Amino acid sequence: MTEASTNMRLKLPIVCFILQIILIILFGVLVEYDYETDAKKWHNKNHTDYDNDFYYRYPSFQDVHVMIFIGFGFLMTFLQRYGFSSVGFNFLTAAFALQWATLMQGFFHGMHGGKIHIGVESMINADFCTGSVLISFGAVLGKTSPIQLLVMALFEVTLFAVNEFILLSALGARDAGGSMTIHTFGAYFGLVVARVLYRPNLDKSKHRNSSVYHSDLFAMIGTVFLWMFWPSFNSAITAHGDDQHRTAMNTYYSLAACTLATYGMSALTAHDGKLDMVHIQNAALAGGVAAGTAGEMMLTPFGSMIVGFLAGIISVLGFKFLSPILEEKLKIQDTCGVHNLHGLPGILGAIVGAVTAALATSDTYGEGMGDVFPDVASGDIEASFQGVRQAISLAVTLGIALLGGLIVGFIMKLPVFGAPPDTICYEDSVYWEVPGAEEGHEDQLTTVMSAETEKLNS
Amino acid sequence: MTEASTNMRLKLPIVCFILQIILIILFGVLVEYDYETDAKKWHNKNHTDYDNDFYYRYPSFQDVHVMIFIGFGFLMTFLQRYGFSSVGFNFLTAAFALQWATLMQGFFHGMHGGKIHIGVESMINADFCTGSVLISFGAVLGKTSPIQLLVMALFEVTLFAVNEFILLSALGARDAGGSMTIHTFGAYFGLVVARVLYRPNLDKSKHRNSSVYHSDLFAMIGTVFLWMFWPSFNSAITAHGDDQHRTAMNTYYSLAACTLATYGMSALTAHDGKLDMVHIQNAALAGGVAAGTAGEMMLTPFGSMIVGFLAGIISVLGFKFLSPILEEKLKIQDTCGVHNLHGLPGILGAIVGAVTAALATSDTYGEGMGDVFPDVASGDIEASFQGVRQAISLAVTLGIALLGGLIVGFIMKLPVFGAPPDTICYEDSVYWEVPGAEEGHEDQLTTVMSAETEKLNS
Amino acid sequence: MTEASTNMRLKLPIVCFILQIILIILFGVLVEYDYETDAKKWHNKNHTDYDNDFYYRYPSFQDVHVMIFIGFGFLMTFLQRYGFSSVGFNFLTAAFALQWATLMQGFFHGMHGGKIHIGVESMINADFCTGSVLISFGAVLGKTSPIQLLVMALFEVTLFAVNEFILLSALGARDAGGSMTIHTFGAYFGLVVARVLYRPNLDKSKHRNSSVYHSDLFAMIGTVFLWMFWPSFNSAITAHGDDQHRTAMNTYYSLAACTLATYGMSALTAHDGKLDMVHIQNAALAGGVAAGTAGEMMLTPFGSMIVGFLAGIISVLGFKFLSPILEEKLKIQDTCGVHNLHGLPGILGAIVGAVTAALATSDTYGEGMGDVFPDVASGDIEASFQGVRQAISLAVTLGIALLGGLIVGFIMKLPVFGAPPDTICYEDSVYWEVPGAEEGHEDQLTTVMSAETEKLNS
Repeated sequence: MTEASTNMRLKLPIVCFILQIILIILFGVLVEYDYETDAKKWHNKNHTDYDNDFYYRYPSFQDVHVMIFIGFGFLMTFLQRYGFSSVGFNFLTAAFALQWATLMQGFFHGMHGGKIHIGVESMINADFCTGSVLISFGAVLGKTSPIQLLVMALFEVTLFAVNEFILLSALGARDAGGSMTIHTFGAYFGLVVARVLYRPNLDKSKHRNSSVYHSDLFAMIGTVFLWMFWPSFNSAITAHGDDQHRTAMNTYYSLAACTLATYGMSALTAHDGKLDMVHIQNAALAGGVAAGTAGEMMLTPFGSMIVGFLAGIISVLGFKFLSPILEEKLKIQDTCGVHNLHGLPGILGAIVGAVTAALATSDTYGEGMGDVFPDVASGDIEASFQGVRQAISLAVTLGIALLGGLIVGFIMKLPVFGAPPDTICYEDSVYWEVPGAEEGHEDQLTTVMSAETEKLNS
Repeated sequence: MTEASTNMRLKLPIVCFILQIILIILFGVLVEYDYETDAKKWHNKNHTDYDNDFYYRYPSFQDVHVMIFIGFGFLMTFLQRYGFSSVGFNFLTAAFALQWATLMQGFFHGMHGGKIHIGVESMINADFCTGSVLISFGAVLGKTSPIQLLVMALFEVTLFAVNEFILLSALGARDAGGSMTIHTFGAYFGLVVARVLYRPNLDKSKHRNSSVYHSDLFAMIGTVFLWMFWPSFNSAITAHGDDQHRTAMNTYYSLAACTLATYGMSALTAHDGKLDMVHIQNAALAGGVAAGTAGEMMLTPFGSMIVGFLAGIISVLGFKFLSPILEEKLKIQDTCGVHNLHGLPGILGAIVGAVTAALATSDTYGEGMGDVFPDVASGDIEASFQGVRQAISLAVTLGIALLGGLIVGFIMKLPVFGAPPDTICYEDSVYWEVPGAEEGHEDQLTTVMSAETEKLNS
Repeated sequence: MTEASTNMRLKLPIVCFILQIILIILFGVLVEYDYETDAKKWHNKNHTDYDNDFYYRYPSFQDVHVMIFIGFGFLMTFLQRYGFSSVGFNFLTAAFALQWATLMQGFFHGMHGGKIHIGVESMINADFCTGSVLISFGAVLGKTSPIQLLVMALFEVTLFAVNEFILLSALGARDAGGSMTIHTFGAYFGLVVARVLYRPNLDKSKHRNSSVYHSDLFAMIGTVFLWMFWPSFNSAITAHGDDQHRTAMNTYYSLAACTLATYGMSALTAHDGKLDMVHIQNAALAGGVAAGTAGEMMLTPFGSMIVGFLAGIISVLGFKFLSPILEEKLKIQDTCGVHNLHGLPGILGAIVGAVTAALATSDTYGEGMGDVFPDVASGDIEASFQGVRQAISLAVTLGIALLGGLIVGFIMKLPVFGAPPDTICYEDSVYWEVPGAEEGHEDQLTTVMSAETEKLNS
């Protein structure tokens, strides 16, 4: 890595422009309005305006959209000197990923005469896939250049679409809120990437790998928006009617129970019985992750609360005991602890989903079985076999995530992408014009930072 | 109070876990999906998917949810060293209260064969009840432990449900946006609790009972989200169609008028003609509170604007002249001034509701009378008697709030709940691991705080 | 300008109260519920509750509302010492403008028997008009008193309604997302006002005309909410069904493409290849502006991405090369760079709209033509003439904005409105009680500021 490699003057424009132009060309060739967004097709059919899926899904889409851009973006602003990059690279990466995901998911989920037909459901799915990339971003936060993130997004979106296709289409699994496809996949993919990008001398940036008072408050904006809108996330693409309704409600109670577990565990495990912001910011969300697969099923609020409660406990324990092991023994420097928020709760969610599916009976679901488990409803398979499908799906997801992360990690390691040196990780001023922290202090801080980065770039 | 009493290591986990486990058990025994969230029941009936109440109410629910968690949470971050607790205890208390409220409200609002049936309307009502607890939290902000808050929530939710039952079911009052049930109840309950918890030596923490520049900006996030989504709050559980539509619109204009009144009054009453952030953050919201009862009625935008205008004036005057009296004469240390934002405007809203109800004519409401005043529409009572019902409801609410707050205040005063001493009120580091305010300053600030709290805990 | 002129003690209350009382009276005389918000009228008709426009538009309205109050408000908090004013004056100005806009738009868009009928669409339109005023506010940010802003809003709303009437009603142009009516109008109006209010000695406040680290993060809250909800903005008042759906989707892809262009251009043009927060906060939004007119048309995602891509490039180039010229040669001190975010992209959007309209064929639109181009569908005009209408509309908008801004600028310049002197621009403490920046620093900072403003007011 040459010293000037972090200079983005030419690299970033070239990458952004090439990617965007390719996207535009591919959209021009491949993408069409679906019948609900096309003026001619929609008016050709006989229906009322409410039939348009827009009214069923757009409010959910907007909530998901907030989770992706505000939720993930601000959740990562907890670092004291990495707020610009957290929100800003989240923004850039997501803006690219959602376009690319539209193409990849359209490609795998069925072309119509060589064309990809898109509407609000495509937008939600694109945001979902983007969420997976942002989870992986959390594992490598502070240690990657924006170009590395775009490269990661390029490959991860592709593999996400492959995995999603295998799970939902080939295996016939159910995963409306993405415990497997989004959370487990994104977390383990990111963890392996972090392993490949292991930095033995990261200690040199240790003093910046922590929060300050107001950065923790900014992060709570992210946390709370994620928490509030998770019911919309899990229910965004479930079937109309009782299914969306039930999924949102299950997730609501799962999250509430998770929050109490998180506060209890945080006080129990943290220093001097004091609450730890890291736990509150992250573990309180595990209930949403863990309800991602079974949320649309007849899990009941009672079941949802048990799941959320366990997820909160597991997640805090992960932060307390597992993260240090991952870092010291496995050399995985997981900046945001995505293993504890998305990895473990994602696996829990997959298992809960498999068990809940296996226990489905027509006595419980009635005519509604067709919405949730169409193959069980049609008599093609037994509910227990649906449970097996779900379990296999978890294994497939882990396999693709681990293998994919390994390969993509090595690609990202190529020295041309402008990664920051070990001495200036978790630091905005590598890639951003940064003002001072406060009026009057400006000169002093800027001077220090400029000196440090000038050494690097000149 | 022993010196180590603020240590939460065992207390908080025990309380959180016991409460959550009891909740889970009660949900397992008592709670069922209603027919709109149950796969079997929903598919048994003959209807279209839009008939599902989810599509009428879920967008409103999400707005209310944002008000509860972002709105109330960030509104209280104005204190310079209490941001973690403001957002964090708001989060914990609300996550508990909404679960407990589901049970209590379900219990009082009609069991179905020994079961509580829940759907999106239950979720909104649970959030509403939670809002009431958070209003009371505002009165005691900075002076209570998280355990005290959970204890308060436990009892306040119960009393809220009793009061709500008396008002809406027994007395037949209307209060869709909760001027009485939520705001008046929450404010006076909290004020009495604050009176019981009176701290004669609170002066010792006086230097922390103020804002800093950025904490006031964080608080504005809360204010503005509350302001924007109040139309959704007041209309969330009104009848479908014109009622939701009208309520949202009335609230919108009431808030706008209130805002101009607030700015005018703030400049008029504050130091040197300068605007006071306390007024803007709080009084500008009084128009939403005051439109809580009459918002669904044919109040007209004209009437709504008058109500909002008066609410803004009253609220600023309350901050300027009444709050000091409450503190000095009545020994009520109302941290957030909830009396001015929720108490006075809540009473105003109740009175406006009573008058508007008494003046209802079939000439104005036509066939729509049945939605707003079913007993008047059916001919059982005169409109004027509906007004009397509303007035009695205000009195009942005040009675239950004052008496309930008194009893619950004494329970909260028990020395086992870990309240902070007078010297360290309004201070996060009692219950939280707190980083420094800014890079570099970290050590210095942490040292000061650690020293102070070590004295306490060791 | 006398030294004490910035004292708001009497001026602001008088202005707020007079304006609000006039509004109340006019609402009392002129405004009525429309048939969807009126209890009697709604229940007189035969329809289902979903038919109520509330369910089609209220979620979009709420997103627009967030853009107006959080989006614009926080976007402008980037200045280090002007956060209270940015959010607070945005709040005040918008609360006034939306009431006044209801009247003005109601007046021009058709009275019903001498009455203005209002519902959710009026609320959206009022917010739209308010948005235009807030754009102009961006041009004069930091240099105006709250009274000047109210005066500006009073006249600008009126002229907005005139221009909108000419475009949409007289000329038959289409502009659902307001590339012309909102963005071009608001930007050029504001720029001319800024020109008239030119301050030759503004250098004296130069040290405050910049950001600090956390103020840039607050601004990103505004940016991201604007970005996320722009699809709702552009689609909020388009026709039900495919039109709302298509408009939201076009805007979504336009913004994504714009974001990549912005990051690329920012690295290319900024200092040392480092990203500039000013670009990210602003130019990334240009894709929403530029899709404002053509978004509802059959622009295709492909076309939308090209538009967004160009908008991002133009906007960054504007910040880099044009803003300095505007300031030095044309004496336009455009604080927020609204010319680059709203002016240039607004013109681009108008042109794209004209071209897209001119190219409309019944082969593409089918029966849906009537929703988008009713006069073309009815055979009254050719599509190419619709394009001409659009082009004329741009010219009319520019004319009214420039002339209107000139006149209103001179009115605002009257010395009675309490504008800050050149030495204390971009400074909250002129109009606000301001606490210190941080615990401990409080006294020091407050002392400095107090001394400075005391000199002024005493």
